[in-house]
Amino acid sequence: MAKYTIDFQPVGRRVECSEQETVLDCARRSGIGINSICGGVGTCNACRVQIVSGKISKPTDIESGVFSPEELKAGWRLACQTHIPGDCRIYIPPESMTTPQRLQVEGLEISVIPKPTVATYDVQIDAPSLSDLRADAERLLKSLNHQYNLRCRQIDQSVLHTLSPQLRSEQWHCQVAVRGNEIIYVNKAGSRCLGLAVDIGTTKIAGYLLDLSNGKVLVSRGLMNPQISYGEDVISRLTQSMISEESGKQLQSLLVESLNQMAAGMCSEVGAKVTDIVEAVAVGNTAMHHLFLGLPVRQLAVSPFVPVITSALDIKARELNLKFAPGVYVHLLPNIAGFVGADHVAALLSTGMRETKDTSLLIDIGTNTEISLVKKGRITAVSCASGPAFEGGHIKYGMRAASGAIERLRIEGNAVHLQTIDNVPPVGICGSGILDAMAQLYLAGIIDKTGKMTDNYPRVRNGQKQREFVLAENPEIVVTQQDIRELQLAKAAIRTGIQALLNAHHCTDDDVRQVIIAGAFGSYIDVSSAIAIGMLPSLPLDRFHQVGNAAGAGAKLSLISLSQRNLAQKIAENVHYLELAGTPDFMRLFTEANYLGRYRLEDSRRRYLD
Amino acid sequence: MAKYTIDFQPVGRRVECSEQETVLDCARRSGIGINSICGGVGTCNACRVQIVSGKISKPTDIESGVFSPEELKAGWRLACQTHIPGDCRIYIPPESMTTPQRLQVEGLEISVIPKPTVATYDVQIDAPSLSDLRADAERLLKSLNHQYNLRCRQIDQSVLHTLSPQLRSEQWHCQVAVRGNEIIYVNKAGSRCLGLAVDIGTTKIAGYLLDLSNGKVLVSRGLMNPQISYGEDVISRLTQSMISEESGKQLQSLLVESLNQMAAGMCSEVGAKVTDIVEAVAVGNTAMHHLFLGLPVRQLAVSPFVPVITSALDIKARELNLKFAPGVYVHLLPNIAGFVGADHVAALLSTGMRETKDTSLLIDIGTNTEISLVKKGRITAVSCASGPAFEGGHIKYGMRAASGAIERLRIEGNAVHLQTIDNVPPVGICGSGILDAMAQLYLAGIIDKTGKMTDNYPRVRNGQKQREFVLAENPEIVVTQQDIRELQLAKAAIRTGIQALLNAHHCTDDDVRQVIIAGAFGSYIDVSSAIAIGMLPSLPLDRFHQVGNAAGAGAKLSLISLSQRNLAQKIAENVHYLELAGTPDFMRLFTEANYLGRYRLEDSRRRYLD
Repeated sequence: MAKYTIDFQPVGRRVECSEQETVLDCARRSGIGINSICGGVGTCNACRVQIVSGKISKPTDIESGVFSPEELKAGWRLACQTHIPGDCRIYIPPESMTTPQRLQVEGLEISVIPKPTVATYDVQIDAPSLSDLRADAERLLKSLNHQYNLRCRQIDQSVLHTLSPQLRSEQWHCQVAVRGNEIIYVNKAGSRCLGLAVDIGTTKIAGYLLDLSNGKVLVSRGLMNPQISYGEDVISRLTQSMISEESGKQLQSLLVESLNQMAAGMCSEVGAKVTDIVEAVAVGNTAMHHLFLGLPVRQLAVSPFVPVITSALDIKARELNLKFAPGVYVHLLPNIAGFVGADHVAALLSTGMRETKDTSLLIDIGTNTEISLVKKGRITAVSCASGPAFEGGHIKYGMRAASGAIERLRIEGNAVHLQTIDNVPPVGICGSGILDAMAQLYLAGIIDKTGKMTDNYPRVRNGQKQREFVLAENPEIVVTQQDIRELQLAKAAIRTGIQALLNAHHCTDDDVRQVIIAGAFGSYIDVSSAIAIGMLPSLPLDRFHQVGNAAGAGAKLSLISLSQRNLAQKIAENVHYLELAGTPDFMRLFTEANYLGRYRLEDSRRRYLD
Repeated sequence: MAKYTIDFQPVGRRVECSEQETVLDCARRSGIGINSICGGVGTCNACRVQIVSGKISKPTDIESGVFSPEELKAGWRLACQTHIPGDCRIYIPPESMTTPQRLQVEGLEISVIPKPTVATYDVQIDAPSLSDLRADAERLLKSLNHQYNLRCRQIDQSVLHTLSPQLRSEQWHCQVAVRGNEIIYVNKAGSRCLGLAVDIGTTKIAGYLLDLSNGKVLVSRGLMNPQISYGEDVISRLTQSMISEESGKQLQSLLVESLNQMAAGMCSEVGAKVTDIVEAVAVGNTAMHHLFLGLPVRQLAVSPFVPVITSALDIKARELNLKFAPGVYVHLLPNIAGFVGADHVAALLSTGMRETKDTSLLIDIGTNTEISLVKKGRITAVSCASGPAFEGGHIKYGMRAASGAIERLRIEGNAVHLQTIDNVPPVGICGSGILDAMAQLYLAGIIDKTGKMTDNYPRVRNGQKQREFVLAENPEIVVTQQDIRELQLAKAAIRTGIQALLNAHHCTDDDVRQVIIAGAFGSYIDVSSAIAIGMLPSLPLDRFHQVGNAAGAGAKLSLISLSQRNLAQKIAENVHYLELAGTPDFMRLFTEANYLGRYRLEDSRRRYLD
């Protein structure tokens, strides 16, 4: 009986499956929640999934009746009907999932005086007559400038395309959205003035709908980056988009489509129209930035990893196919380098790193981890390839932070205490769980400084190829020696980055007065565990701050305050980017950083404390 | 035997045709040159024509073999095969015409120091390395600004979409087109720097390809405005575009398609690529301006005839589907009012009216005639609905200035001396011919001051409904009493416009030191004839200047000189527009202006001299 592997997305769990089993059965057996109302007989159509790569099964008669030929060709199937003919990756759309994915959208609560780039004005315009023959555009500008003492001179073209009939049907009374000296949209009088901030992560997208008149967040929403079905990490995404122009466009339009849906959903939630959005700000890592704009990425994927552009951009919504009013701008915060993007700039902004007097570290942990050290106003940034382990990648029972993921654990004697998301039976283990596991295994002496697992412990057994530690028995979830190695690489990468920054600034650990941990993953980790294995420096716990989505917070700040936006540009221009691979002692640092255990740094030399 | 009327376009001749006759025979009989190599047996396919309105004939088997179903549906037929089943309008494409249409593209020879808005620079850029990780955009800007001491800060988005692969394939050496502080295009090093000026007339389009480095015209080209198949005059064109959004888009895309073809043809003539065009300037009347941009026109078509916008516009080629490089701008000169467009601004510019010390008139005669009076630097403009008579419309044997059109005539005793375009047998009579005819008939006493035709002359006969004067017998071409009435209306409209301007400025004819007659039609008329019938004031002939396509000349000036372009904006802003219908004695002036005969104006009162 042939056995294949299904890679379930966006959950991020890889499961073995036999040919005899349906996809639904396989998911259920592994604790992955796919909807099914009819009990798997193909009548409720609630278990729609998409086979996004690998061999696609022949559609059954039932499936042919449910999906259009295009959908079938695109890999859409019913999980309860499909038996997979080979290894594949299957995407479970949100509507087919029993529990929503955990997506962090909360971040720092920020407070600045709202002064956005776009303001709206209620304008009363004189109707034309034989004795007043001015053109509609000039008429509007004159009334606006006169009533509000402005010096507006330009009107977006798209506004010109609807202006004349609009002014007449609205009886010469309307709301005008002004950006700089340009009218970007003319709306019904009394419309709302909304802004959208988005943080486009490789895995997740966080969106915030704000009222620009007072800077308040009206709705927050998180969703999976739909590009995930084309590759989990940045590199595979870039590779995918390099295959052909078409394929790059496909990645772009997937993302844009999601943003359109998200914006429409958020607006309808507050009884507004998507055309009430008069400005948007987007941040993301440099790769997401390029894929979003449809920029070429080949030069970003090969050394020396150069972006097309780093400075901030203002792009009309229509140029990106975003369904806001066509004259509305999307502002993209500046990038720093090929692997330190606008999301890091936004995080530096929202955490006030530029103004801080204390020497501080800002760490945004992910598949790629960006770290900045700020000392006396000077900011240096590095990027470390920490890999997919924290997202559950390359870990045998790894998964994302979804329902049933083990997110915390403690080993006490022979017992293992598990905490899962939603308190349901464990399905797999997510980033914070694997970090805890490693710390607990190390502290219990089950793995040594080099990461080697002992066989002298009841829960340790010899698996097919390697030793493994049994976390749970039913369903069985183990941590393998290989899992430990993966996590070691990740923690070593981060530790090397921190180390290189401290060295470059001639700092010791003690000089570091605060460590700000940003990002979804960083918010959930147990800092003590990270210190215990030596991923973070051994400092008093009160110096650590887990701030959540600092990038999203920075996007919001840049949306509601022009001066904050300008500050972001200044930050990006002044950050010194340190290319880790170019530092002289990179290999030595990295090798040393592989060892487990708490450490402190004094006089630029590492000393292990235990 | 049923008889129908075919309106042949773009020739502008209406011909009676029987059901028995083929379209080719009918055209030949009337002297309209349609190609035919095979002798009308349907094998050479050289006589392709399009039935653009009216009843479309059922395609013959031969036609079904020649055209696709879409083409057949769009009215494409072979003139030698088609018998028309009712009144219709037939468009003869350029490739099916034996002689090209006469299209004036020549204008004033202008001489300004070239200083266009766009300049190109040859740039050598440092390649990136691990020790120089700047983004490609910043790298390019830095090199450009450094090498040429510029302060360029922006790069058009479309440039970003190709920049990175382009710099690498061109080995970091390229030509950069800069406009203001923006890079709008990156081209191969050593490419040309071309500009395109176009004058979009209701009937004709004139295009000029210039070398922006020296301001020289490389190629001039004229073509018919393809929108003509949707209506000959501005009003029917506007009405057409108001039918539906689709229909407005159709008119726009027809025009854009023509401009693309014209640009490509002109470029290939000088061995350049269409992407070597780095700037374009377009002028036209306000209706053409709006149709070109796809702006709404309803408010332009009804009183008080208000444009969407009058001020100048800069629009990216890509937004108009023009096939230049996507970041290139098309500059549209400003309009003055609903019926005084950018073409008149361009004519005022190229004729130096703003600087002239003498009181001057600028007259651009067409279906709509725009007239400006300049006195002590103050410019006042009017628009007169002179109608289609000068284009051959509403005249029994009227036609445009195409091969076989009578363009000059003299009556001597009983003889009529005719001069036709291309010296071929007469096909019809064009504007300058009909003007001559009227003057000659009036001077010979065949028509009186009121325009009434005598019957006391050998060549005058009573036609079916009215008296007519026989100009030619084989083929027969006559001038009817109704033709005279049409022309009287046209000349009265122009005379009223001139009169209203003189009255407004308290001028007499004598104050007017120069009369500049612009436009294709105006270049061909016999000024003495126009004076004889009282269309133009009776001034010494040396005060008249026929300058050809002054609008095209103005477009060229604005293309090669930024200061001229700024001057155009200043002119448009300072022209005082006089609404004729709003002047107190409009009806009186118009009634009086219907009389024929030379006149002079003194103390604001008309005195007929003969």
